[in-house]
Amino acid sequence: MVESLKDKVAIVGVGCTKFGDLYDHSLQDLMVEAAEMAYEDAGIEPDLIEAAWLGTFSPGFGGGKASITLADALRLYGKPITRVENFCATGTDAFRNACLAIVAGLYEIVLVIGAEKLKDRPVRGLRREGVHPYLDAGSTAPGVFALAANRYFHEFDIDRHVLAKVAVKNHHNGALNPKAHFQREVTEEQVLNAPIIAYPFGLYDCCPTTDGAAAAILCRADRARSFRDDPVLVKGIGLAVMTGKPYFDPTFDYIGFRSTKLAAQQAYEMAGIKNPRQEIDLAEVHDCFTWTEITNYEDLGFCKKGEGRYFIEEGRSALGGDLPVNPSGGLKSFGHPVGASGVRMIYEIVTQLRGQAGPRQVPNPELGLVHNLGGPGSVACVVILGR
Amino acid sequence: MVESLKDKVAIVGVGCTKFGDLYDHSLQDLMVEAAEMAYEDAGIEPDLIEAAWLGTFSPGFGGGKASITLADALRLYGKPITRVENFCATGTDAFRNACLAIVAGLYEIVLVIGAEKLKDRPVRGLRREGVHPYLDAGSTAPGVFALAANRYFHEFDIDRHVLAKVAVKNHHNGALNPKAHFQREVTEEQVLNAPIIAYPFGLYDCCPTTDGAAAAILCRADRARSFRDDPVLVKGIGLAVMTGKPYFDPTFDYIGFRSTKLAAQQAYEMAGIKNPRQEIDLAEVHDCFTWTEITNYEDLGFCKKGEGRYFIEEGRSALGGDLPVNPSGGLKSFGHPVGASGVRMIYEIVTQLRGQAGPRQVPNPELGLVHNLGGPGSVACVVILGR
Repeated sequence: MVESLKDKVAIVGVGCTKFGDLYDHSLQDLMVEAAEMAYEDAGIEPDLIEAAWLGTFSPGFGGGKASITLADALRLYGKPITRVENFCATGTDAFRNACLAIVAGLYEIVLVIGAEKLKDRPVRGLRREGVHPYLDAGSTAPGVFALAANRYFHEFDIDRHVLAKVAVKNHHNGALNPKAHFQREVTEEQVLNAPIIAYPFGLYDCCPTTDGAAAAILCRADRARSFRDDPVLVKGIGLAVMTGKPYFDPTFDYIGFRSTKLAAQQAYEMAGIKNPRQEIDLAEVHDCFTWTEITNYEDLGFCKKGEGRYFIEEGRSALGGDLPVNPSGGLKSFGHPVGASGVRMIYEIVTQLRGQAGPRQVPNPELGLVHNLGGPGSVACVVILGR
Repeated sequence: MVESLKDKVAIVGVGCTKFGDLYDHSLQDLMVEAAEMAYEDAGIEPDLIEAAWLGTFSPGFGGGKASITLADALRLYGKPITRVENFCATGTDAFRNACLAIVAGLYEIVLVIGAEKLKDRPVRGLRREGVHPYLDAGSTAPGVFALAANRYFHEFDIDRHVLAKVAVKNHHNGALNPKAHFQREVTEEQVLNAPIIAYPFGLYDCCPTTDGAAAAILCRADRARSFRDDPVLVKGIGLAVMTGKPYFDPTFDYIGFRSTKLAAQQAYEMAGIKNPRQEIDLAEVHDCFTWTEITNYEDLGFCKKGEGRYFIEEGRSALGGDLPVNPSGGLKSFGHPVGASGVRMIYEIVTQLRGQAGPRQVPNPELGLVHNLGGPGSVACVVILGR
């Protein structure tokens, strides 16, 4: 890495649909809704968009209906549109590639969309697409993350009560968020008594299957104030890809994710962050499972390995804590439409940095972090945003 | 567009597998073979690769096995790897995003891989993945391109004899190319007598279904001569996405592709090309069907609309002509593993610009063009390379 993109890219508009079981919305409906909110938020004419990056994980056969679906949805014709796919880090990696294009100087204003329809596709279809042999082996997302969680439990002598506190916190935050998939509190007792999906994960330890889309409009930082007087600047980005078979890797310690550590290291270096615990004011991290949020605290450097339990138990990651994590409600409560999530997390951090988050507002934040984790913990993307 | 990437990115290494029915090679085998050739070609240690872009259209369930598959294949761990998908323009768009990253200055040396396994996946699987309703409507690739070809025939009063000449030329070139899927000549008579796939396309008017991979190593132009004294420079790139339903678009004239025209316009502007016919010395264009190559001549500005027939009939696009097109053999004869093709075409142009193309060498070329066309003519990417 020879140069940083710090302070060269600004976010001047964001949009996000309600997340949930959106059976009455097509993928295009969601794209249009998110994009139009972002256009309005930036006060920009859609014609000024010079290029777009679309993050979507599974838009249909072979991924092959992505860029033209966006072109048709937004009538964004004759311009470059790239689809990016990177497991659950799809949204943040689409954002990353858009940032690179702005820094390259080829475009002044670009659009990033993350969109995914997960609810109304047949599970039989999913199995037929090639994942079947893995499902047979129990290698579902809950299954593979449960392996690591169990090892972590053994290593640090914790149990499901710690995980339950993450679910309670994120459901609390989601209950304050009118766009969240689930807007209701849960109690520790409810979480602990829920049916087990893959031990130690019960139903409330797992994020849901959700539809949704989010959008962001990026421009050269030196153009930002022609759109808004409160642009949010990109401070750093990191992306790291590790083996797709971490559970068969004898050097994998099963108690955290190197992808997250390395992506964070890249982003912190670019942003000039020495002490993330002190410098970062809030974070949206990838809580696909409650345990994942705990290891994220550690892998992102918010606390030492094994001390994530205290981070949740002592309320440090709660809305009133000193480093609120997932004020939106997180994947757990806001929902997780794969390709949309990263851009949705960017939407939340931008909203918070502007002071527009209403009852879930973190007091006066200056620097926020977005983190996605994809595949069996193999891919991570970290984005640092600031005022 | 505010800046050009002209002369800022160099290609210092390329690699390409044999294309064909590679039942005994996995997707990872192909990635490794192409990448190792590119490493050796650049004389570079693999550890120097800072980031990678992977172009692959349909690597498995939901596209979800792409970036980590490459990481595992090449042991390229802890680094950023982005998968790009853009229909048949997947390979060139992966290359485009890698170029943007180099121009942004975030990386000095990056890898681009295009790879695809098409032969040994079940057709039933393809149908089940969601394309079935379209297949029912006859909306296969031959079907939709045949609609435009028939309209073109009507408009310009040509017939299948003209198309056959494209097949004869590209099979002739492929016969000179040891990496081509098909390495044999065909006669006009054979082409005309082959079974009809979708009128006016017979078997020899259609590119085959192929496995293969290709790779390119890019670096900042000012670093290029530390690797090779004959770097190839990127002069311009364009990408344009149009409607996914051109055949239902009342403004579509059915006789060419606006995506190609607009992508070429972007690339020519960036490269400072005023007269492509005069300035470009050779081209690899997207001949998914023989007719597509004819409309490409016109849409790329090599001749006027309706005059493509003369371009092939008078031998101008033949190896000895004044603007040789598809000296490699083209998709028609070299094969078309979707995500690999764009990078494979870049491999060919680089090989030609270096004067290493053996019996198919174009005399002393200075400037070459690569063109991909994706979806039902909806997506086009054009790359201009020069010495």
